[in-house]
Amino acid sequence: MNVMEKLIESIDKLNTPVVAGIDTTINMVPKSIIKEQSKINEDPIKAVTTAILVYNKIIIDNIYDLIPAVKVQIAMYEKYGVEGINIYNETCAYAKSKGLTVMGDIKRGDIGSTADAYASHLTGVDLDGNINVDIDADSNQNIKSENIQIWNEDMITINPYLGADSLTPFVNACRTSDKSCFVLVKTSNPGSSDIQDLITKEHDKPIYEVVAKIVSDLGHDCINKYGYSFVGAVVGATHRNIGTKLRQIMPHTFFLVPGYGAQGATASDLKGFFDNDGRGSIINSSRGIIANWQKDSKYGEHNIGEAARDAILNMKDDLTSVLGE
Amino acid sequence: MNVMEKLIESIDKLNTPVVAGIDTTINMVPKSIIKEQSKINEDPIKAVTTAILVYNKIIIDNIYDLIPAVKVQIAMYEKYGVEGINIYNETCAYAKSKGLTVMGDIKRGDIGSTADAYASHLTGVDLDGNINVDIDADSNQNIKSENIQIWNEDMITINPYLGADSLTPFVNACRTSDKSCFVLVKTSNPGSSDIQDLITKEHDKPIYEVVAKIVSDLGHDCINKYGYSFVGAVVGATHRNIGTKLRQIMPHTFFLVPGYGAQGATASDLKGFFDNDGRGSIINSSRGIIANWQKDSKYGEHNIGEAARDAILNMKDDLTSVLGE
Repeated sequence: MNVMEKLIESIDKLNTPVVAGIDTTINMVPKSIIKEQSKINEDPIKAVTTAILVYNKIIIDNIYDLIPAVKVQIAMYEKYGVEGINIYNETCAYAKSKGLTVMGDIKRGDIGSTADAYASHLTGVDLDGNINVDIDADSNQNIKSENIQIWNEDMITINPYLGADSLTPFVNACRTSDKSCFVLVKTSNPGSSDIQDLITKEHDKPIYEVVAKIVSDLGHDCINKYGYSFVGAVVGATHRNIGTKLRQIMPHTFFLVPGYGAQGATASDLKGFFDNDGRGSIINSSRGIIANWQKDSKYGEHNIGEAARDAILNMKDDLTSVLGE
Repeated sequence: MNVMEKLIESIDKLNTPVVAGIDTTINMVPKSIIKEQSKINEDPIKAVTTAILVYNKIIIDNIYDLIPAVKVQIAMYEKYGVEGINIYNETCAYAKSKGLTVMGDIKRGDIGSTADAYASHLTGVDLDGNINVDIDADSNQNIKSENIQIWNEDMITINPYLGADSLTPFVNACRTSDKSCFVLVKTSNPGSSDIQDLITKEHDKPIYEVVAKIVSDLGHDCINKYGYSFVGAVVGATHRNIGTKLRQIMPHTFFLVPGYGAQGATASDLKGFFDNDGRGSIINSSRGIIANWQKDSKYGEHNIGEAARDAILNMKDDLTSVLGE
């Protein structure tokens, strides 16, 4: 079963179209955790990244039963280089071990064989095929013919600026590995209008609709029993009317929706992002969930998980009240 | 001095506007090297990545005196996860230690604080400021107040689909750290026309020209004595007329030009990419240089470096013959 189908079933079961963004910054982590990790790890980068991992596990332990998925923003980890990528992987693996669907917010995009290389996020790597070396009796290499899984994402985000041929390797990877991807269509930031909103003469439509068409076409032959393909779209919550329009013109494309909460969008902006069955979108909140303990003095550093749970339950109520209208 | 100025001076000194793409795949690496590394490293991923690093060092050792810069495509390393990122870093560091300008072809792009996080590729991380923890006498943490350099790139490539506000954090990072970035404007692949070539009603220009304007504006206040800002553009060699036009409409923007050789462009396509002084572009070749030993039976696995040198010298002749016309 493709992970997109599994995701939809988890959302239905929990009645919670929410994905928690595990985009942890060191400012969210209590000083006590950082100090403890600084005592254990002499390397300051290792201390900081391990502290973030400890924090992420507290969050995941406390929310995995409430939500279908987490989204992990790789930039927050790549910031710390190899050590950061290491805890990105560990965070994804830990979330996966708890049954969560794991979205890697990696926004990669490149051409041809380079896109193929990035697609290892989904497929792993086939060392045997790549190496093409006879395994000798005198060699102690234990290279297997099956792919080695390097990353732990079920789904990734990708960038369409380089065109359809830059997306195809990722779609192919989804197909062969039952994974999924979300193509950036209309992002939540103010500057998204600079390119994405421009009206093209050829199509008499904005760029985001041109990309929407590419995304729909790429996913047309992989539609699951809920009516959605495994090629999804990122559509910012901050654009109420655009989201509603895109929901209509790409009925088989599932939306990953950033921008709720901290970026200003509310549940009432989001009704149009869902289909008539209340499906079709999953709404992301990052800081609003994982840093909720810092927002209200009733929480302290011993209520990090409780605060995250409260944020999710509030968000669920907020969304279901609108969807239930 | 900003690295863009240093790059231009190196190009002038060597009379070689060539950047070698160290985009090594395991198929380029002689079996003998892989076997040797497989004996040393039990972990097959470690064996493969170390073999690639050995190969990269052979290449760099043999070409560093001929060229001003290398471009390292991170996807080829990210493919192998943490171990891959590790040798990406080591490859960049090794090239830097030989005096080469190091371009990280990372094509990142995201919004706000996420773009800031990616910009650590240029700035490093300021753990002190980020952690904001009093350094206690009883703590053995050795956190310094200056930034810790995590990566080893002088310049990186970035993706503009999310708009100008997604690029600004990178430009700011360049400013504070004397680094440089190249924004994707018109890429070399056939599918680049899907989005980049569409004519916008608002501007009566193709998207790549709209992006070109954003790039020019971002770099308008940081122009060096050669007339070029530290905000560069990626312009594919495969689009002769577009490159010529962009050279005219963005006179202060330096071009990183992929697509020569393996992707089909020749030196005669590239004259218009340069200014009247023969400056303004650096042409990338990857496979054509680093895998040249596999293309001609006169080379063997003991002539990897020699073959790479020959490819660079041929490319230099090819380009200078056109520039000298």
